[in-house]
Amino acid sequence: MKIMVLGGDGFCGWPTALRLSRDGHEVIIIDNLSHRRIDRELGVESLTPIADIDARLAAWRRVSGRTITFHNVDIAQDYDGLRSVLAEQAPDAVVHFAEQRAAPYSMRDATRKRYTIDNNVNATHNLLVALVDLAVDVHLVHLGTMGVYGYDGNGLEIPEGYLDVTVSNEAGQTFPRSILYPTQPGSVYHLSKSLDQLLFQFYARNDGLRITDLHQGIVWGTQTAETRLNDALVNRFDYDGDYGTVLNRFLVQAVNGYPLTVHGSGGQTRAFINIQDTVHCVALALANPPARADRVRITNQLAETQSVRAVAEMVAGITGVQIANVDNPRKEAESNTLRASNRTFRALGLEPILLQDALLNETLEIVERYKDRFHPEVVPARSLWTRDNRPGLVPGLSEDNTV
Amino acid sequence: MKIMVLGGDGFCGWPTALRLSRDGHEVIIIDNLSHRRIDRELGVESLTPIADIDARLAAWRRVSGRTITFHNVDIAQDYDGLRSVLAEQAPDAVVHFAEQRAAPYSMRDATRKRYTIDNNVNATHNLLVALVDLAVDVHLVHLGTMGVYGYDGNGLEIPEGYLDVTVSNEAGQTFPRSILYPTQPGSVYHLSKSLDQLLFQFYARNDGLRITDLHQGIVWGTQTAETRLNDALVNRFDYDGDYGTVLNRFLVQAVNGYPLTVHGSGGQTRAFINIQDTVHCVALALANPPARADRVRITNQLAETQSVRAVAEMVAGITGVQIANVDNPRKEAESNTLRASNRTFRALGLEPILLQDALLNETLEIVERYKDRFHPEVVPARSLWTRDNRPGLVPGLSEDNTV
Repeated sequence: MKIMVLGGDGFCGWPTALRLSRDGHEVIIIDNLSHRRIDRELGVESLTPIADIDARLAAWRRVSGRTITFHNVDIAQDYDGLRSVLAEQAPDAVVHFAEQRAAPYSMRDATRKRYTIDNNVNATHNLLVALVDLAVDVHLVHLGTMGVYGYDGNGLEIPEGYLDVTVSNEAGQTFPRSILYPTQPGSVYHLSKSLDQLLFQFYARNDGLRITDLHQGIVWGTQTAETRLNDALVNRFDYDGDYGTVLNRFLVQAVNGYPLTVHGSGGQTRAFINIQDTVHCVALALANPPARADRVRITNQLAETQSVRAVAEMVAGITGVQIANVDNPRKEAESNTLRASNRTFRALGLEPILLQDALLNETLEIVERYKDRFHPEVVPARSLWTRDNRPGLVPGLSEDNTV
Repeated sequence: MKIMVLGGDGFCGWPTALRLSRDGHEVIIIDNLSHRRIDRELGVESLTPIADIDARLAAWRRVSGRTITFHNVDIAQDYDGLRSVLAEQAPDAVVHFAEQRAAPYSMRDATRKRYTIDNNVNATHNLLVALVDLAVDVHLVHLGTMGVYGYDGNGLEIPEGYLDVTVSNEAGQTFPRSILYPTQPGSVYHLSKSLDQLLFQFYARNDGLRITDLHQGIVWGTQTAETRLNDALVNRFDYDGDYGTVLNRFLVQAVNGYPLTVHGSGGQTRAFINIQDTVHCVALALANPPARADRVRITNQLAETQSVRAVAEMVAGITGVQIANVDNPRKEAESNTLRASNRTFRALGLEPILLQDALLNETLEIVERYKDRFHPEVVPARSLWTRDNRPGLVPGLSEDNTV
């Protein structure tokens, strides 16, 4: 297949592009390199050193003998650029990762809230409009998030996108309905993915677009079989308060002798998936497209659910560091249960990688290797959900988080 | 109260601003005059001649002795302008009409689809972000649409925003839930109002904003007690294929001797409300705000439901014109039932104006008066929902819809 990967320079997009290229697909990356721009804006950088996009692609050609092409297009702002590259390339499938992807960044201030909604909604909508305008039958695979569901399940298993409910009329007769799961996003970032869902629903229904929406858990890990092949192919490893996901942040703290910053009691239960499974799931989704008249196929992309406390204890158990229960910068329930179906990918053969010592150790080695690139001052989560929240600072550490 | 009316130069916004001013409120209109710009873009104009905004406001001062102030701000593009006028004026309430408001226009082509989503989502989101950023406790009243619900009710009454459902777990235990009604918007315009709902849900929940969302039916009529006071205060009367609502379009066709263009069989049942009740309902909503911790208050704003065929037959009965069943440019069910609750406004004392000869005759007089401003070529609905749809042209009339 010819596959276009929108956001193919990012943390999930880059290893996906390499995997699809290795599998023999013709891969075209579209990216505006916004992640690199936001790094400069925030004064942070990936713990792993990320080569220029040209150097990345050249390294891939050397080690694999395969060519991935790259087009620098801001799909949220440059509709004509997006439309013409779609028209020229005529891909069979488009994988859409091209959105601002961090909840804390989306809550940082008015500017970032506005950027997240404007960028993510227009990126997705431009893509849908272009596909309709070109009248092409392309399978669109989008990266959503488990966070759209919210965490008020009261012990009920979260289904894959659609909820079976019963409604009653005045006479007490009951009628079954299968509805889009009523979303309760917990940040502006997650909200943007809820908005995406409604865009997809409309364009699948009105125009028959074939769409798969992958509701992914929190990603951990860094490398995949392909990114390991050469130093210039290494994947991003974000550990700052805005872009660092929780497990990666804990590992960096542990290696550098900092306490693990657990927000509140750590009773928040979340879904997790290893980056290698992200890549695997996207490949499975591409191989199993919906039919033209189908509703949007929504698939949960997770390996397991764990509480933040349990994840911290696992890391503390391996490394011997302390756990610090700090203020929670987020507005969220202190504690919740979470059960979520991942039946679709299991049925397609996914044997998910679970959080375990061996794989944590692999990531610990990467953190150890790039220890000199660690900046403690960027670790605390300082983006506040409301005026009543407080940053996740460890008492006793100075303002810049140094000992 | 001090009330800011966003979109206060438009068809619903203008008579609302006048009514609130007459009621003794201090009224500030914010508008970017986009409706006037789109008129020029489409080569159409209101059947009634609309004075410049300055002339409108001067006439209101003369006839009422009251002052409405006006700020030209594009709230979707100019966040800083919006924020500073909110900060300066410190209103008690904001009525938000400032969105692209036509379904056919939103489906016209790629450019208008993109404009509708970009404009409407950013307008609403900028407003929400500004209210949070300023930390002001303002009651936000937004004009939504009955169209967010979709028309697949299977005879069940559409509730006011929230649907009571039952969900089951694996053991067969059932749990009640009150959920945001699962939307099925039928156009990009209606989609934008579904997106608004999720924005409101998030900001009410995360930031405690007090929000009322009014899901309004199709508006008919033109004048209100206030707009009748002077010719310079007259309200808009759109009758073109993009901006003319169905009843007003029928009345113009009837007076000018054209057949009434019913899309398909006319079995589409829709909700209707007279413009005088629009204004009345907004005033009632402002007088009955939700409390700070409440979920978004969603209220249906309609007087009755009628099929398009029944509305056409009513107009044909009065005027003696023919009905033409033309191609349907929209993708929609040929026929549907629709029952919808309007309990909230009924309980607050609304005695809705129903479609009836007397009031149709009043509108017919306006159409008669401005007959020389009628342009038959703009009447047919030519914005197509998909490539499989056809414009609503009467066989036997020429391409420019002249006899």
